[in-house]
Amino acid sequence: MAIKTYDEYYDRLKKMNRNLYMGGQKVDRTDERLAGQLRVIKETYDRANDPEWEDLCTATSQLTGEKINRFTNIHQNTDDLLKKQLMTRLICHRVGGCIMRCMGIDVMNALSVITYEMDQALGTDTNKNFINYLKYWHENDICANCAQTDTKGDRLKRPHQQVDPDLYVRIVESRPDGIVVRGAKIDNTTAPVSDEIIAIPTRFMTGKDNDYAVAFAVPADWEGVKMLVRPAYHHKRKYLHAPIAEIGDAESYTVFDDVFVPRERVFLDGKGDPRQTPFAGFLALLFAHYHRHSYTGCKPATSEVLASAAALVSEYNGIQKEDHVRDKLSHIIGVAELVFAAGQMSAYRAERSPSGTYIPDEILTNAGRRLAGEEIYNEYKIVADLAGGLCATLPFEEEFFSEETRELANKYLMRNPEVTAEQQHRCFRGIENLVASELAGVMQVAGLHGGGSPQMETITMMSRYDLEPLKGIARYLFGLQEKLPRYDRPTVTPRKMLERFYKI
Amino acid sequence: MAIKTYDEYYDRLKKMNRNLYMGGQKVDRTDERLAGQLRVIKETYDRANDPEWEDLCTATSQLTGEKINRFTNIHQNTDDLLKKQLMTRLICHRVGGCIMRCMGIDVMNALSVITYEMDQALGTDTNKNFINYLKYWHENDICANCAQTDTKGDRLKRPHQQVDPDLYVRIVESRPDGIVVRGAKIDNTTAPVSDEIIAIPTRFMTGKDNDYAVAFAVPADWEGVKMLVRPAYHHKRKYLHAPIAEIGDAESYTVFDDVFVPRERVFLDGKGDPRQTPFAGFLALLFAHYHRHSYTGCKPATSEVLASAAALVSEYNGIQKEDHVRDKLSHIIGVAELVFAAGQMSAYRAERSPSGTYIPDEILTNAGRRLAGEEIYNEYKIVADLAGGLCATLPFEEEFFSEETRELANKYLMRNPEVTAEQQHRCFRGIENLVASELAGVMQVAGLHGGGSPQMETITMMSRYDLEPLKGIARYLFGLQEKLPRYDRPTVTPRKMLERFYKI
Amino acid sequence: MAIKTYDEYYDRLKKMNRNLYMGGQKVDRTDERLAGQLRVIKETYDRANDPEWEDLCTATSQLTGEKINRFTNIHQNTDDLLKKQLMTRLICHRVGGCIMRCMGIDVMNALSVITYEMDQALGTDTNKNFINYLKYWHENDICANCAQTDTKGDRLKRPHQQVDPDLYVRIVESRPDGIVVRGAKIDNTTAPVSDEIIAIPTRFMTGKDNDYAVAFAVPADWEGVKMLVRPAYHHKRKYLHAPIAEIGDAESYTVFDDVFVPRERVFLDGKGDPRQTPFAGFLALLFAHYHRHSYTGCKPATSEVLASAAALVSEYNGIQKEDHVRDKLSHIIGVAELVFAAGQMSAYRAERSPSGTYIPDEILTNAGRRLAGEEIYNEYKIVADLAGGLCATLPFEEEFFSEETRELANKYLMRNPEVTAEQQHRCFRGIENLVASELAGVMQVAGLHGGGSPQMETITMMSRYDLEPLKGIARYLFGLQEKLPRYDRPTVTPRKMLERFYKI
Amino acid sequence: MAIKTYDEYYDRLKKMNRNLYMGGQKVDRTDERLAGQLRVIKETYDRANDPEWEDLCTATSQLTGEKINRFTNIHQNTDDLLKKQLMTRLICHRVGGCIMRCMGIDVMNALSVITYEMDQALGTDTNKNFINYLKYWHENDICANCAQTDTKGDRLKRPHQQVDPDLYVRIVESRPDGIVVRGAKIDNTTAPVSDEIIAIPTRFMTGKDNDYAVAFAVPADWEGVKMLVRPAYHHKRKYLHAPIAEIGDAESYTVFDDVFVPRERVFLDGKGDPRQTPFAGFLALLFAHYHRHSYTGCKPATSEVLASAAALVSEYNGIQKEDHVRDKLSHIIGVAELVFAAGQMSAYRAERSPSGTYIPDEILTNAGRRLAGEEIYNEYKIVADLAGGLCATLPFEEEFFSEETRELANKYLMRNPEVTAEQQHRCFRGIENLVASELAGVMQVAGLHGGGSPQMETITMMSRYDLEPLKGIARYLFGLQEKLPRYDRPTVTPRKMLERFYKI
Repeated sequence: MAIKTYDEYYDRLKKMNRNLYMGGQKVDRTDERLAGQLRVIKETYDRANDPEWEDLCTATSQLTGEKINRFTNIHQNTDDLLKKQLMTRLICHRVGGCIMRCMGIDVMNALSVITYEMDQALGTDTNKNFINYLKYWHENDICANCAQTDTKGDRLKRPHQQVDPDLYVRIVESRPDGIVVRGAKIDNTTAPVSDEIIAIPTRFMTGKDNDYAVAFAVPADWEGVKMLVRPAYHHKRKYLHAPIAEIGDAESYTVFDDVFVPRERVFLDGKGDPRQTPFAGFLALLFAHYHRHSYTGCKPATSEVLASAAALVSEYNGIQKEDHVRDKLSHIIGVAELVFAAGQMSAYRAERSPSGTYIPDEILTNAGRRLAGEEIYNEYKIVADLAGGLCATLPFEEEFFSEETRELANKYLMRNPEVTAEQQHRCFRGIENLVASELAGVMQVAGLHGGGSPQMETITMMSRYDLEPLKGIARYLFGLQEKLPRYDRPTVTPRKMLERFYKI
Repeated sequence: MAIKTYDEYYDRLKKMNRNLYMGGQKVDRTDERLAGQLRVIKETYDRANDPEWEDLCTATSQLTGEKINRFTNIHQNTDDLLKKQLMTRLICHRVGGCIMRCMGIDVMNALSVITYEMDQALGTDTNKNFINYLKYWHENDICANCAQTDTKGDRLKRPHQQVDPDLYVRIVESRPDGIVVRGAKIDNTTAPVSDEIIAIPTRFMTGKDNDYAVAFAVPADWEGVKMLVRPAYHHKRKYLHAPIAEIGDAESYTVFDDVFVPRERVFLDGKGDPRQTPFAGFLALLFAHYHRHSYTGCKPATSEVLASAAALVSEYNGIQKEDHVRDKLSHIIGVAELVFAAGQMSAYRAERSPSGTYIPDEILTNAGRRLAGEEIYNEYKIVADLAGGLCATLPFEEEFFSEETRELANKYLMRNPEVTAEQQHRCFRGIENLVASELAGVMQVAGLHGGGSPQMETITMMSRYDLEPLKGIARYLFGLQEKLPRYDRPTVTPRKMLERFYKI
Repeated sequence: MAIKTYDEYYDRLKKMNRNLYMGGQKVDRTDERLAGQLRVIKETYDRANDPEWEDLCTATSQLTGEKINRFTNIHQNTDDLLKKQLMTRLICHRVGGCIMRCMGIDVMNALSVITYEMDQALGTDTNKNFINYLKYWHENDICANCAQTDTKGDRLKRPHQQVDPDLYVRIVESRPDGIVVRGAKIDNTTAPVSDEIIAIPTRFMTGKDNDYAVAFAVPADWEGVKMLVRPAYHHKRKYLHAPIAEIGDAESYTVFDDVFVPRERVFLDGKGDPRQTPFAGFLALLFAHYHRHSYTGCKPATSEVLASAAALVSEYNGIQKEDHVRDKLSHIIGVAELVFAAGQMSAYRAERSPSGTYIPDEILTNAGRRLAGEEIYNEYKIVADLAGGLCATLPFEEEFFSEETRELANKYLMRNPEVTAEQQHRCFRGIENLVASELAGVMQVAGLHGGGSPQMETITMMSRYDLEPLKGIARYLFGLQEKLPRYDRPTVTPRKMLERFYKI
Repeated sequence: MAIKTYDEYYDRLKKMNRNLYMGGQKVDRTDERLAGQLRVIKETYDRANDPEWEDLCTATSQLTGEKINRFTNIHQNTDDLLKKQLMTRLICHRVGGCIMRCMGIDVMNALSVITYEMDQALGTDTNKNFINYLKYWHENDICANCAQTDTKGDRLKRPHQQVDPDLYVRIVESRPDGIVVRGAKIDNTTAPVSDEIIAIPTRFMTGKDNDYAVAFAVPADWEGVKMLVRPAYHHKRKYLHAPIAEIGDAESYTVFDDVFVPRERVFLDGKGDPRQTPFAGFLALLFAHYHRHSYTGCKPATSEVLASAAALVSEYNGIQKEDHVRDKLSHIIGVAELVFAAGQMSAYRAERSPSGTYIPDEILTNAGRRLAGEEIYNEYKIVADLAGGLCATLPFEEEFFSEETRELANKYLMRNPEVTAEQQHRCFRGIENLVASELAGVMQVAGLHGGGSPQMETITMMSRYDLEPLKGIARYLFGLQEKLPRYDRPTVTPRKMLERFYKI
């Protein structure tokens, strides 16, 4: 079957070459510090194999007609976008936040559009390679990381202006059979447990930066690929096992140490064919766009996880009926609702690109993602506010179980006689994991930066928004123009951008 | 034809009895201080008669099958809701803000549901009267005010507890042929130029408040109805005529001075039939709900009008490319997009009530309306910020035209050589009207309170939101419950509320 | 006596030449549309003559040793700054907001410093003229406007680059006996009822803009000075007279139509002596600084006026004990407290300039003024929120007094039996004036822009803040530098700026 | 000498009885998991012994006349308050945030006032005990924890209503020679390394809660005292040692397991003398007040530490000149300035209590502390925003030093050629510690809750603020009262509260 089980996936990982570096050592993908990250990814395989979730977590391959994991699906219509978003939301609830597998499918959707557009514009033959590669995905239920963020060196200089030319990933050599790449990508969530790494540009590239216009896919343990791994996970529980405590994150600082990529896995090669260079930017933006649309699914879930914890601890604290508690919960819920609605309506207003892939509305997606990013720290504040200081000062688990202290520790934890000491303990321990742990810090930063910070969304949004027709409203009202056409808020879609660029 | 022209409507007004009081005098509906309000309503007749707007501004009567003005339509499906919202948005652009005719159709939709539900629950026969009344609307393209807000006296006391029993509108007498009502309603926008006044309760009523459970419709010049009118409009322009300067508002403080209402125009009579009393609250809430959904149309338009003016004056001031200008415009635009998306998704998630009328999602509608209300003052701030102080200090129009000063006045107004002095003048005069006028003050208050303040939306939202399933997420994650069902954010819909109440 | 009465001041106005243009006509300073503005200024004369306010509203002339109106005082010590701020706050309460006379004394303080510094740096002899002029102030209790804001033309171009060279006020001719100036200044509050107009630059000037480096004082009715006046005031009350209804504003768009200024009234002349040009910027900034410090007095008062109205209407509405009301009041009060404290501490940290004049701390003053500006619209929102819609829909005064409607109008206005209908009426009428009137719009814009918008305060604040010592904290903590000196947040004071510039 | 060195203090700790429980074991105060907490406290001893800091970090004993550590000083005048606040700010810079020793001296100041007032009101003899105890402090440079927060059980019930009567600390027995107490206190920062624990009530107590009106001091290792310790610290650095990495926190969940307290260490005993019960609340509030005033010192420092890191990483990232960076830094700085100014002005407006101890202004202190609490999460957001995702994904330290990866790891870290790879590394490692670590989570919660959450400050502020005189402003302006007295914003000081309560 095209859909794989977690065990099948894990077996693949076990067989991979050792190219992970952690704490000064070379380690296998079975290293226990990766267990938390694996636990998250497991959810994506389990649910696709779960009959109760089949409607949401599976799709039909456009290539093979087979049932596939939705995390490998290219959106063929509005319904695919809606289901992707809903799946993301619901599955995130189960892991207490980010599901960490979306960037793979987000970049695949972007590649499906851009390789096609590029072929149309330049007469290249890249989409064929992409389709073959997609087939491999569909047949193997591939888990991938999208490696986009270059280390960027001096941010006021373009790639070719850097003192060290390698500070953006670049093509050292372009040959008929493939390319040799050098450089590093950072912030690569899930990369340490991915089958594949797909690297794409991080920004627009112009003439002198042809070498940096590069996109490709390699197996995660490919020769020359070296991952410096940064895991984050919770204190291991001894007594009170719980899903929240099992999840974790693994980030990679991925070095491409003169890596050869065969031609059929190259999707953009500005060095070999400088005409391709402008597509670097389109690809960068389109991946970001799909990824931001994914955030309209995961971020409402994150908000709901936080609201859920806030509501639960308010109940345990006995304050759930107070006005300020209702107001605060309502604030988080309102944000979640608005962000999710933004993503849904982006799907309803999606445009079918010439490649057949659907692209959600950009202005609305960015407006939604931005709101989510702006509010994330505030939502953590609300949970901490309603929980009280104990979520940051709770004694270690052992104190509630060791003979000498357990009775006293549990006695004084009691708040509401309907709630047992263990329930109290579980609740505060859970909130500690959620808001006052190393992983919480990582999740805050991810909630802000993932898919781009609010700053980036504002820039993208305004680059897509045409202010001239908007100004027409004031011009009409102020008597500066005679008539006011029906205002149809225009979007400068990717297609329109390409058309403007290529005059096609 | 069922759709009337503005002239036909205006002819009706001209024939009405004199029951408007303004500035110490009894005046006709042709009083020039009402011209601004009429100019706004005119738009709703003109567009319904405009072939270019026909698709949006007309609908098909469910009763007669005839083409009707959408401002008299009962929403028969999701598409009706979407079109109502979009019509509201686009038509508001043309009057620089509130279109002021929505409350009539919002209360009619609420009555269509509640009279039907009440008949089902109690075996009454009210919906038939409503249907007849609706037919009258469809045939005559009726413009109506919904008079909901009681003066309320001491707000900590229920209606029957007030020192003066008339501080909420009440039924003084209930007879077989009708009822006699006494009291006053306030904040009745458009009432001075409406054909009809539809009065409904402002809150839930309980046993002792049967007399106050009352809903009815009367012609606006009906015997005993007295309107104390408060108009708001701009300084009359002598030279630079512009749509913004022509609009205005007329509010009424409407007194029901022992008014007899014939039975066929009575939709709720708690005095005659105390079993009807609980429906007072359902009706109050459902009207508020439809009205808030209308706000998801008008409020994005108001935001866009403000953003439009802000963008235009930024262009004239030559600062349109500055980062902070982009950020501020983007903020207003983002709010408009999110609020509109909230209303659209509320329509997509609408529930068909047993009466056949569609009811948008309540949680999302409230989340959207609340964001709009929270941001309205901030949006005015942004326009004033980008315009600069001149929008509040611009000399009178005459100084730019009188012989002695016109040359100097216009010379120094120049900013950008591509923009003429008159264009500058028009722009700043328009912004003065928009943000630093009496009408601006009224519009700010309306943008905050219309349909209920953010406070009310939070309360409604949380009364519809079931926190228990939400808490399930944290319970699962923290190991307090074994399984996590797929989270389908539940709404306590009006139907469910009725079912709970009547055990039906 | 050096302190004049309002009548003495008003007599001066009556004698002035007619150079005000309003509504197409040339008018006297006794025009009734200026009555509101005069009512505000009256307060500044009355209080200085009121024994109960003498301690606060008078000072001692540094020149004559006589008792003078504090609105003509040059700050000789910290106590002067504290009293100026407190006087501003308390006197603003009495006029419901801006006292409108501070800009005159703010610019005088700035001139006292800059003329002195310039003389020191360049060997010029300007301070002597200033001192003579100040003596005239002290002897006559002068009311003045500071005309700073140029119309600015294309804001991306410097003064000399404008298509029309007159878009910033400039010196057309510099002669031994004086200068001839041409141009216009806008947003000149109080100018129509001022004795004097003091014009200063609006920005830094560089080499090619010597002609624009100009500061001078002229009587407000001086030959060639033409004021296009824009008044704002409330609907005249017929029955319920109240201070709030009597106040008003008068703005001027002041044209200098080739005005000759005698040398002894010239304080900066970059055309005659280009070495003076850099002082244009120092003067512009220092006036802004004193004016912002004044805002730390008036703005808390404005907030308190709004909070006061909000508290009163909450009492009348019977909601004063609700949590959300307390939270909202507390928010306004908190802002007022913080802004006032910022101004007070700026006084405590003031620096004595070589001229003897005290200069408050710039960073803190800007932080305080910025908070005030950021919150002003929000404060209006809170008042409107707690008042309810009636503040924007209240029928005209006459309806509450005319025979036909007064009984009904007053009956239904009742809320709380302890409050009479007239009290209710007064309260809502007052709030209408405060938040939903033309003047309210002007006050909102003034609250945002007066002294410079939040944007400007951020820029100023950061130009005074030296980030290098601040970064030292992180450098020490992160192990990037060995030692951490005691952090004394440094300010780049005006003196330091001058020293850097002149290497003095 | 009265001032002790860190070593002398540490020697005391080493001799203490084992009553700390951590991770299931009984441990000594030398446990390495407490090293971070000790490192923070060390700063308070080192600076008092440092001649460069002597002016700030030492004071003069009111009892012995000797030089003492300012962390043991009772504020005798405004200057003491100003110095305490400034010391707190400057010393916090050195430990990257909370100095963790202020609660001890804050509670001592509160006790100095309340024991005196109680003696005055009731004729008790408690202040004498306090003075003796204070002498012990002065002679030994005591480090103490204030244990205030009870676990509180069901928060809607009062202490005596709880199912388990021990959920608030209570007096089990009151005897002539002392009292026996039972219960637990939580969130006790620094307690594991303190000499003394001072327990005080957490709320107002009324008649039936006499047993809970209790305050006392015991040595931290006293019989029956058991601390369940929760430490938080950073990953131990192997290579890049830095102050930020050495700091930590240790919280205690402190159980009083039938502890006997000798009479001379009892400061409140409602069981023995029920007349003392009302003082429970006054003491609770006054400690909170002093502690909030301390926050006006530490919180600006925390903000400055965050701003410093944000400014440094912006420089390293090469974006320091961008407008949005300036705006964000300016926001943090502005908050720091305003909060510090609030604390300073609270000192200037301090009231001398009858005991001689100075009490800062409560309204302003609360306004300042609240702003700090409201903004803390936002400030973390800004640092993360400007740092970029790398602060949460940085590989472990070893990867930058191990032979196999160090070259690649450091090569790609380079941003700005003026900054070495190690400097980059140090900067991002430091920011990781600051914003994406377990300790960061604890500091966020502490920044929100320490001294009371913003909710509590609003409540306190409004309980001290008399709205009646404020309403007078609107009453005057609206014509509801004839005259407006000079508005002197009144504070209901602790003294006034006591007077009202005791009619003294």
